[in-house]
Amino acid sequence: MESLYVIKIGGNIIDDPSLLTSFLQKFAGIKSKKILVHGGGKLATRVADQMGIPQTMSEGRRITDAETLKIVTMVYAGYINKHVVAELQSVHCNAAGFTGADGNSILSHKREKAGIDFGFAGDIDRVNADWIRQLIDNNITPVFAPITHNGMNQLLNTNADTIAQELAKALTPFYKVSLVYSFEKAGVLTDVENETSVIRVLRFGEYKEMKNSRKIFAGMIPKLDNAFTALSKGVYQVIIGQGQNLDLLISGKSGTTILYE
Amino acid sequence: MESLYVIKIGGNIIDDPSLLTSFLQKFAGIKSKKILVHGGGKLATRVADQMGIPQTMSEGRRITDAETLKIVTMVYAGYINKHVVAELQSVHCNAAGFTGADGNSILSHKREKAGIDFGFAGDIDRVNADWIRQLIDNNITPVFAPITHNGMNQLLNTNADTIAQELAKALTPFYKVSLVYSFEKAGVLTDVENETSVIRVLRFGEYKEMKNSRKIFAGMIPKLDNAFTALSKGVYQVIIGQGQNLDLLISGKSGTTILYE
Repeated sequence: MESLYVIKIGGNIIDDPSLLTSFLQKFAGIKSKKILVHGGGKLATRVADQMGIPQTMSEGRRITDAETLKIVTMVYAGYINKHVVAELQSVHCNAAGFTGADGNSILSHKREKAGIDFGFAGDIDRVNADWIRQLIDNNITPVFAPITHNGMNQLLNTNADTIAQELAKALTPFYKVSLVYSFEKAGVLTDVENETSVIRVLRFGEYKEMKNSRKIFAGMIPKLDNAFTALSKGVYQVIIGQGQNLDLLISGKSGTTILYE
Repeated sequence: MESLYVIKIGGNIIDDPSLLTSFLQKFAGIKSKKILVHGGGKLATRVADQMGIPQTMSEGRRITDAETLKIVTMVYAGYINKHVVAELQSVHCNAAGFTGADGNSILSHKREKAGIDFGFAGDIDRVNADWIRQLIDNNITPVFAPITHNGMNQLLNTNADTIAQELAKALTPFYKVSLVYSFEKAGVLTDVENETSVIRVLRFGEYKEMKNSRKIFAGMIPKLDNAFTALSKGVYQVIIGQGQNLDLLISGKSGTTILYE
């Protein structure tokens, strides 16, 4: 099967134009088929401040109320997505930007739980793998903004890590899928204070052991649990590390490569 | 050849949610293949005001300076485009939203003329008809925001009427293309004060005569000249009239149908 890389970048790259340019050049250089998923970054907060729209917080989390949804749709699907696409086009990567509403590509429902206000946050139900496959096979590189829809005229703010994971899983019948999470740290660390303590390869057996003996930083556990779930659903490998070294990350020379066995 | 409708809606529909809903329902009901092109509307001005960004005017025209380009990218390609797509999806029209940067679909260059500052305004050079055709033939309904790019990492604010016309012309080798301009008036009027004075069918010979004898409202002449240019390049018909009556417009029961001969 042909290789497909599903690569997620977070705010630390989005917010730094020179880091973003260097990342996008390396991304464009990947010869395999690929999908980019981007998060939000600080611009949405800045635009909300400039527009005088107060941010609602609940238990330390920002709530996507109606006004915030409007802003994240403008900033994520408009500003960030189209700037990333235009920059990729300029380095000869035929990118096209999407939300989950476009081509009905990612359907979600509004997160609801009695007594808790999550605002317009979406949990993913279904990925339209057929259409995404058509795009990829027509040599388009899809670039997803972290916005999905419920099919009933409601856009929903959706976690970019989850979008990357659901895209990766949905495309495993057609490609040998590598899921790459670019984040601030050099990889999965045994010592969170020491960037050189990167675990190069992490397999499920070792992970369970390290988790039991608390040798893994607690903050990484949800990410790693998700990674192993993706692997159990047919994703070939999950790579976690610094996006600015994307070429080294893809080739296994930096970051942590996570394998099922 | 199969029919294709390229339909442009302007600010009067974009700015009125109930008008927009009724328009989109009628648009979704068109059985033929179709493309929607939308303009801007007043939201960009409102967002600029809210963000405290002054609008630069030159000879009565708003100039797209760098800050304004940022806002129109957010509002046109983000907010408006994704809301239109989500609403079309909810009425079972498989829409996907694009700027000219997406899939390199519309290439333009920055308008330059010695001594005149046009800001980041784009004049179209080329439409990537192959990709748009692939989308349409995969039963996608493309929805274009009035933003294009120059291929060198510069997004450009671009007139929506022109985008519609260039798309229509570029797709004539593959479809029998109807170009529909939805605007405020009931159609081309012989008396601008009288909405019942709609010219039902306008052919080039009659138009030349009416233009010479000044029987056509001067404000319509650029639009009509463009319409006849499109027809001379192979577009089958141009229809001008009120978008809220899209079904009547498409069937020739309202508005003005413009034909070459």
